[in-house]
Amino acid sequence: MAIENGHAVVLQEIDPSKLKITRTPTPSTLPSTTSLPFGIHHSDHMLILSYDPQAGGWSAPEIKPYANISLDPMSSCFQYATSCFEGMKAYLSPTSQPLLFRPEMNMARLASSVSRLSLPPFDTSALLELIKKLVKTEEKWIPRDEQGKALTGYSLYVRPTMIGTKSSLGVGASDKAILYVICSPSGPFFPPVLPSEGKVPGYIKPVKLLTVSEHVRAWPGGTGAHKLALNYSPGFLTQKEAERKGYDQILWLRREGREEVVMEVGAMNFFVALKRDDGDIDIITPPLDGTILPGVTRASILQLIQSDPTLFSSSFSSTTNPTPKLYAHETPLTMSQLDAWHSQHKILEIFGVGTAAIVAPVGATIVVPEYEQGIGPVAAAIRKIILDIQEGRVEWEGWAVGC
Amino acid sequence: MAIENGHAVVLQEIDPSKLKITRTPTPSTLPSTTSLPFGIHHSDHMLILSYDPQAGGWSAPEIKPYANISLDPMSSCFQYATSCFEGMKAYLSPTSQPLLFRPEMNMARLASSVSRLSLPPFDTSALLELIKKLVKTEEKWIPRDEQGKALTGYSLYVRPTMIGTKSSLGVGASDKAILYVICSPSGPFFPPVLPSEGKVPGYIKPVKLLTVSEHVRAWPGGTGAHKLALNYSPGFLTQKEAERKGYDQILWLRREGREEVVMEVGAMNFFVALKRDDGDIDIITPPLDGTILPGVTRASILQLIQSDPTLFSSSFSSTTNPTPKLYAHETPLTMSQLDAWHSQHKILEIFGVGTAAIVAPVGATIVVPEYEQGIGPVAAAIRKIILDIQEGRVEWEGWAVGC
Repeated sequence: MAIENGHAVVLQEIDPSKLKITRTPTPSTLPSTTSLPFGIHHSDHMLILSYDPQAGGWSAPEIKPYANISLDPMSSCFQYATSCFEGMKAYLSPTSQPLLFRPEMNMARLASSVSRLSLPPFDTSALLELIKKLVKTEEKWIPRDEQGKALTGYSLYVRPTMIGTKSSLGVGASDKAILYVICSPSGPFFPPVLPSEGKVPGYIKPVKLLTVSEHVRAWPGGTGAHKLALNYSPGFLTQKEAERKGYDQILWLRREGREEVVMEVGAMNFFVALKRDDGDIDIITPPLDGTILPGVTRASILQLIQSDPTLFSSSFSSTTNPTPKLYAHETPLTMSQLDAWHSQHKILEIFGVGTAAIVAPVGATIVVPEYEQGIGPVAAAIRKIILDIQEGRVEWEGWAVGC
Repeated sequence: MAIENGHAVVLQEIDPSKLKITRTPTPSTLPSTTSLPFGIHHSDHMLILSYDPQAGGWSAPEIKPYANISLDPMSSCFQYATSCFEGMKAYLSPTSQPLLFRPEMNMARLASSVSRLSLPPFDTSALLELIKKLVKTEEKWIPRDEQGKALTGYSLYVRPTMIGTKSSLGVGASDKAILYVICSPSGPFFPPVLPSEGKVPGYIKPVKLLTVSEHVRAWPGGTGAHKLALNYSPGFLTQKEAERKGYDQILWLRREGREEVVMEVGAMNFFVALKRDDGDIDIITPPLDGTILPGVTRASILQLIQSDPTLFSSSFSSTTNPTPKLYAHETPLTMSQLDAWHSQHKILEIFGVGTAAIVAPVGATIVVPEYEQGIGPVAAAIRKIILDIQEGRVEWEGWAVGC
């Protein structure tokens, strides 16, 4: 609601019934699955809508051919980084239906990011309805095998983005915005292992981590708990230096007095699996203290473990006998605590989790045992169940939502 | 230098000799000086150039009609906030020559921001040469009085901006960029006081500050020492809340143990003037510890004071007798220290300094004495000398650079 000439004006909410679909006259084809690195290709169409209080609120949504966005050089997103986004994946179910994984969690997080940046609010269920229509329109962009069937680990990555478009150099909130959703067909996040590397089938290369506390990803009172564009670029310089030194990702730490607090792994949530004296396993991740991104995969793993400690038993490799129970904990983690557990031989595995990578094992640097598969049995079991749910092979509390 | 097919390829640096100027067929006119709020209007032309290693490096620079920028929705600046900028002002000298204030400091800071974001580097003197040409082209956009003479406090605000334009959702540095410079004719940063408010002539309204430590502007290991787009939007929510409560700006604090460390005032550097026992005055600002923007106005004030403690004597109002000497210090400041000085009646004035506001007095909240002019005598003296140098009435070490 806005005030105009002394009268309250009701501003238009996002209205999916006003959706206009304009199809491209020159559709492209999905690149070969062997050339699908993360986030390079885009599909034929995008969803786009804009907010302008002077124009009455949210515009009629449009699905139209993928195209450039044209903005005033003064635009808020260029000058003051008023941008936020979401990462979602559309998988193909065994019956070839496009599935989104817990998309209402992404919508809620986007709304929270938008609010943190003082961007114009939006109706989350209206946006989700439109995203489902976009995914349905772009269905053929979900990678599949030669029989047209689902291909595990492949998906159509969906990237909702909101940018502030107020044209003013005044340092303040943007009351105008563009909300757009683009799709990118993507293979597994981490590059496949070549046969020449002599690894066992299904080997997943562990991530080599560089611990960093000189540059800090997030801090209490900062924006680390929101999915803002601005949380990422400050890490690029450090990431480049890490790669030059032969590392894959950063383990982001934060100094607190004499301690180094563990926050995240690159753009993933951090998990450690600890052997308990009774043979079962503790799964620990830092709590959502304002410096940690509330990951959908993170929350799902915690909820699955909490629902039933034996849920993952059937997914453990047969060599583990008796199969351990898993127990989940959200506990602040410090490097000295990890070192102590390491010298007590308690650390079974460390892994990062996120929408793009799902579950990625951590190798070297933080010394953890080496596994023939690259990925350890705990991370592998968790990864298997999450993927089974995401790809619609296992139904779990309606988490996989059809489009 | 890049490597291509095993050969080293020298990439093109910015080359001012390749500048192409295309003048608008429809030039606009400068708005009335009574309607020049900060950062709303733009001049006729912009400077633009782009960097692409695949296209050989920096493109030929162009001064062309002000126009939208068209970008791929995947662009790095939208997705990961790879944007940085500078704020400069072109003043009109008494002989009507456009002057830039210490522009090489802005160029060096932009280069440092670009490096912090892993954006492509550029030749700072080549860019400055081009900016001078742009200012010369836009000369008529510097506000002036009816006789065409300089109008104190008015200027053409110059905003160099660099944005990352790599089209990829991969979380990493952008190897492509657009560098553009736009100009905005601007009146005094703070709105003029109306006659109906019954203030003395030349009254400058003190800024009402809300102290904030729940949201934190910058932190050790963060990006507060660089002029990145991303340092600003996290403050918009807090700024909105402050305005709703009747405050003008935020005093950004950072908790360190039990202390609240003072960082900045809105987008200005923080200065406090303290009465010494000998009648002279200490001018204190926090040191450049990585959380403080290295402001050009900040550095200039410190250098002026350090060059001669009596420099400002002639600018003090005649009521101050004998005129005090000023001594500058870079010292960490905490709220408890300010409170202690306040109860010892030592605090003469608090003010913010920056390119846009120059020198802005702080009133209420942090209790400082009230002055009839709004601005206190120390801040007024500093403001006068800085403006005298910036507007070319006083020559000082070549700080005002002709275009």
